[in-house]
Amino acid sequence: MKIANTFAQMKAARAKSPGLVGFVATMGYLHEGHLSLVKLARAENSLVVVSIFVNPTQFGPSEDFKSYPRDTERDLAMLKKEKTDVVFMPSVEEMYPPRSNSWVVVEKVTDRLEGSFRPGHFKGVATVVAKLFNIVEPTNAYFGQKDAQQVLVIKKMVADLNMNLKVIAAPTVRESDGLAMSSRNVYLNPQERRAATVLFKALKLAKTLRGKGESSAEMLRQKMTSLISGEPLAKIEYVSIADPETLEEITTIDRPALASMAVRIGKTRLIDNILLE
Amino acid sequence: MKIANTFAQMKAARAKSPGLVGFVATMGYLHEGHLSLVKLARAENSLVVVSIFVNPTQFGPSEDFKSYPRDTERDLAMLKKEKTDVVFMPSVEEMYPPRSNSWVVVEKVTDRLEGSFRPGHFKGVATVVAKLFNIVEPTNAYFGQKDAQQVLVIKKMVADLNMNLKVIAAPTVRESDGLAMSSRNVYLNPQERRAATVLFKALKLAKTLRGKGESSAEMLRQKMTSLISGEPLAKIEYVSIADPETLEEITTIDRPALASMAVRIGKTRLIDNILLE
Repeated sequence: MKIANTFAQMKAARAKSPGLVGFVATMGYLHEGHLSLVKLARAENSLVVVSIFVNPTQFGPSEDFKSYPRDTERDLAMLKKEKTDVVFMPSVEEMYPPRSNSWVVVEKVTDRLEGSFRPGHFKGVATVVAKLFNIVEPTNAYFGQKDAQQVLVIKKMVADLNMNLKVIAAPTVRESDGLAMSSRNVYLNPQERRAATVLFKALKLAKTLRGKGESSAEMLRQKMTSLISGEPLAKIEYVSIADPETLEEITTIDRPALASMAVRIGKTRLIDNILLE
Repeated sequence: MKIANTFAQMKAARAKSPGLVGFVATMGYLHEGHLSLVKLARAENSLVVVSIFVNPTQFGPSEDFKSYPRDTERDLAMLKKEKTDVVFMPSVEEMYPPRSNSWVVVEKVTDRLEGSFRPGHFKGVATVVAKLFNIVEPTNAYFGQKDAQQVLVIKKMVADLNMNLKVIAAPTVRESDGLAMSSRNVYLNPQERRAATVLFKALKLAKTLRGKGESSAEMLRQKMTSLISGEPLAKIEYVSIADPETLEEITTIDRPALASMAVRIGKTRLIDNILLE
């Protein structure tokens, strides 16, 4: 397993591989969700590249950039076990040199949900992912469905800007009690960890009600909101039943819909989603 | 000479060529300035691709998108003579499908000069050029120094977003009386055409004064402004003596400086520039 700390090292490793290149962009502190993407990349490509880069431009000024969990040694051991070929760990200095002023912005779909609560977040995400794509030049790039809006934004960017790769979304990986895997779960104390199961419970409730024929999106939002509000440690940012492509809120569910939410459990902000088919 | 009207045709033509690919992006209605770029591309690459696309997103609502001069037949004859391999003429519909919402924005350097008089212009330029780069995948891309700020914006975009190509700027080509070649020169009636020489006269004046040791940028701006104002058909938008990298206005010329201007001659907006070394 090669470790590339500079763009030049990454490009040199990439240049040696004429076959399919699978790429997983991460911010490190890896969990089974990330590893499911690496496994998928491993199965479908001859070269597997994983980046670890905690991207400052996608964090708001009051967000957790500085405290975001990091454990490079553990990450590298996990990636080695998955037969990763190249781990790309660029520096902030090389990624964002002084006077770096170019950005990729995806409009409209970023106005909603995460975009409305985290202004500038997707500008940072789209820009760093575009840069990583240009440096790594992958054939296939893998992202987790847990960040549903991020997947949409990246697919939109790739299509709109005619980038030469395929974006593949993989299912959310969950703990045994349903909590979606997230590097931020480490912030939760035991009591909060138990409370955090309320997100998936609300999604399962939506799925059950939809399965029984409920077609009022507002009814689903209300039932989910009510369930989450029953958890004293939970504070809702949004509960959404939206079109899976445009993320516009739906009135009547007469087609697949994305049920999603952002909820604070104590100080920790968690998101989750499920597709209602 | 192959004509590619779709992205698929362009990519197919590109895929056959493993060597160096030179690319010239144009809006058509070609002149000797464009052809100098094609000649340069021809000399330095094994495949030469020229695009003709009048890009709607770089025109403001009150600008000349609809009336922009077009003559495809003449353009193709000129390109054939220069041994162009592929002419890429995509449709607006394929370039900007409905709900295409992703943009490349280069901040700061676009706040000034052209950017301040043509809001949104460089957002359209950077986006279409990024798209063209992704579709054509050139090794080398050639732009004319006449559009000095555009060259800066594209070089900045390529560097900041780690795009895999080299941007090469070629000198402005001028008519015998000094007028910079521009597709928009066709708008000028004979009287305006004579008046239009005032732009280059002002640049030459700046060069002469600088050559004599004048180091006050404000003095140069004043002398240039005064010269242009002597032409009754001319209306100045800006006269600038700026840092060639940041485009910030300079006080004392103690390093190379970019002298540039935008002037309306009748209804036609012309720009020109010269580097004071």
